[in-house]
Amino acid sequence: MPVMTPAMLQQFIIDEFPQVLHLDCKIEHVDDSTITVRMSASENHLRPGGTISGPTMMELADATMYFLLLAQIGPVALAVTTSLNINFLRKPAPGDLIARGKLLKLGKSLATGEISIYSEGMDDPVAHVVTTYSIPPKRNAG
Amino acid sequence: MPVMTPAMLQQFIIDEFPQVLHLDCKIEHVDDSTITVRMSASENHLRPGGTISGPTMMELADATMYFLLLAQIGPVALAVTTSLNINFLRKPAPGDLIARGKLLKLGKSLATGEISIYSEGMDDPVAHVVTTYSIPPKRNAG
Amino acid sequence: MPVMTPAMLQQFIIDEFPQVLHLDCKIEHVDDSTITVRMSASENHLRPGGTISGPTMMELADATMYFLLLAQIGPVALAVTTSLNINFLRKPAPGDLIARGKLLKLGKSLATGEISIYSEGMDDPVAHVVTTYSIPPKRNAG
Amino acid sequence: MPVMTPAMLQQFIIDEFPQVLHLDCKIEHVDDSTITVRMSASENHLRPGGTISGPTMMELADATMYFLLLAQIGPVALAVTTSLNINFLRKPAPGDLIARGKLLKLGKSLATGEISIYSEGMDDPVAHVVTTYSIPPKRNAG
Repeated sequence: MPVMTPAMLQQFIIDEFPQVLHLDCKIEHVDDSTITVRMSASENHLRPGGTISGPTMMELADATMYFLLLAQIGPVALAVTTSLNINFLRKPAPGDLIARGKLLKLGKSLATGEISIYSEGMDDPVAHVVTTYSIPPKRNAG
Repeated sequence: MPVMTPAMLQQFIIDEFPQVLHLDCKIEHVDDSTITVRMSASENHLRPGGTISGPTMMELADATMYFLLLAQIGPVALAVTTSLNINFLRKPAPGDLIARGKLLKLGKSLATGEISIYSEGMDDPVAHVVTTYSIPPKRNAG
Repeated sequence: MPVMTPAMLQQFIIDEFPQVLHLDCKIEHVDDSTITVRMSASENHLRPGGTISGPTMMELADATMYFLLLAQIGPVALAVTTSLNINFLRKPAPGDLIARGKLLKLGKSLATGEISIYSEGMDDPVAHVVTTYSIPPKRNAG
Repeated sequence: MPVMTPAMLQQFIIDEFPQVLHLDCKIEHVDDSTITVRMSASENHLRPGGTISGPTMMELADATMYFLLLAQIGPVALAVTTSLNINFLRKPAPGDLIARGKLLKLGKSLATGEISIYSEGMDDPVAHVVTTYSIPPKRNAG
């Protein structure tokens, strides 16, 4: 069972990760190996033509993996991305994006996951990401 | 429905793609968007310690995506890999490898897929691959 | 010789690509195969602790490749990123970032480049990116 | 200064890494951050048409990074690849391949490098690779 619930993750964003507040993420589900995050498409993220920009999707994927990792190991603010590989597959439709993340490996020092990003109401993914986080060693309690 | 069956793909390997014969692949299943390929672990692929080498897994993933693509578009020998990204997740167990491929996008000129490689009898993947093939333009018949 | 100069690229940003204005990029150099882009580190991009965020570096790399490509082929607003692979190597120092891009291939329909991102005054890169853009086919003039 | 010379690396291949003997690699140069490896193109690696196969280039890149890493840290046979990202850029010419590797980061537990692969006599790379190795922790002497 994950150690952080969606509500705890939402509070963590407010307290420790305000730089993603602009994505307006809602953690819809999290369990031992998967997560679903909805991003409200506001004016800020739109490219001319009404689609969400590539960098916004990269940021959403990065945050989704971070939430999925934190849900397993607790609020370790110092976990950092070591690599991220994204393929842009289709033009997103106007509207919300749904990121579905899955842990591929949760090791002691590295965690790897994949994230598929969907436009609401489309069956095929608009982008696919594989990313690895580095987990800092635990400090001994004093 | 795919245009090539597993049997047709096996014959294609013999006729047009003999360089992967050493992988001893068996196409166990193919449909419109997924494929399952089993690789028999022979002595040739083993590293000291009895595990299958990383380059062998890269070759298996590359071939798996090629088979999945050919199954959809027919025996286009000239499709070529443009990129491949692999994450090695766990040490494979001795024994066969199972590659499960899924199309992420089949476009006119590019096809992208992901492949998870499993050791027989293990639940978690030993490697995960995302790869893109370039599809040559169709020539007009004379 | 590139078809767009740094000054033309700066004007293109203002006219056609305002969503990267917040990066405050200065195109310092561009030639047939390389580009240098300086990003002023303003308060907006900083994480707690004063370092520039990962997503900001991804956006800088993506924009750098776009500028390098446009410099070669002219202001084709419809070129789009198809893939981006980033490795985060070191914590950036406070201060400006310098992105140095190099074309690996400029084909008819795909262009691939690599970008190393440096913190001003550090010898080793803070991040390394390989990315591919898709170039739309030319329309025939009417 | 590297702790292993080209001659020591060649001997290491024979003693500990015989699975790459088939690549017929010659370590032409190694220093603190770069390496040059020549692969003789024998019949074994050729695809129909006389070009070297993609999987062979992946194997060459993987081995080149391994040699570059070992040159810095000594003959640690247990270093393993964690990820590899390759872009195939051009069809190789018949003849030898030259792999030029460069360390991007040598950390305590991870080392990342990039490798450009050239066909002898061609100016532009045929493939470009970024790869990360995991370095096992040192055991304390007993």
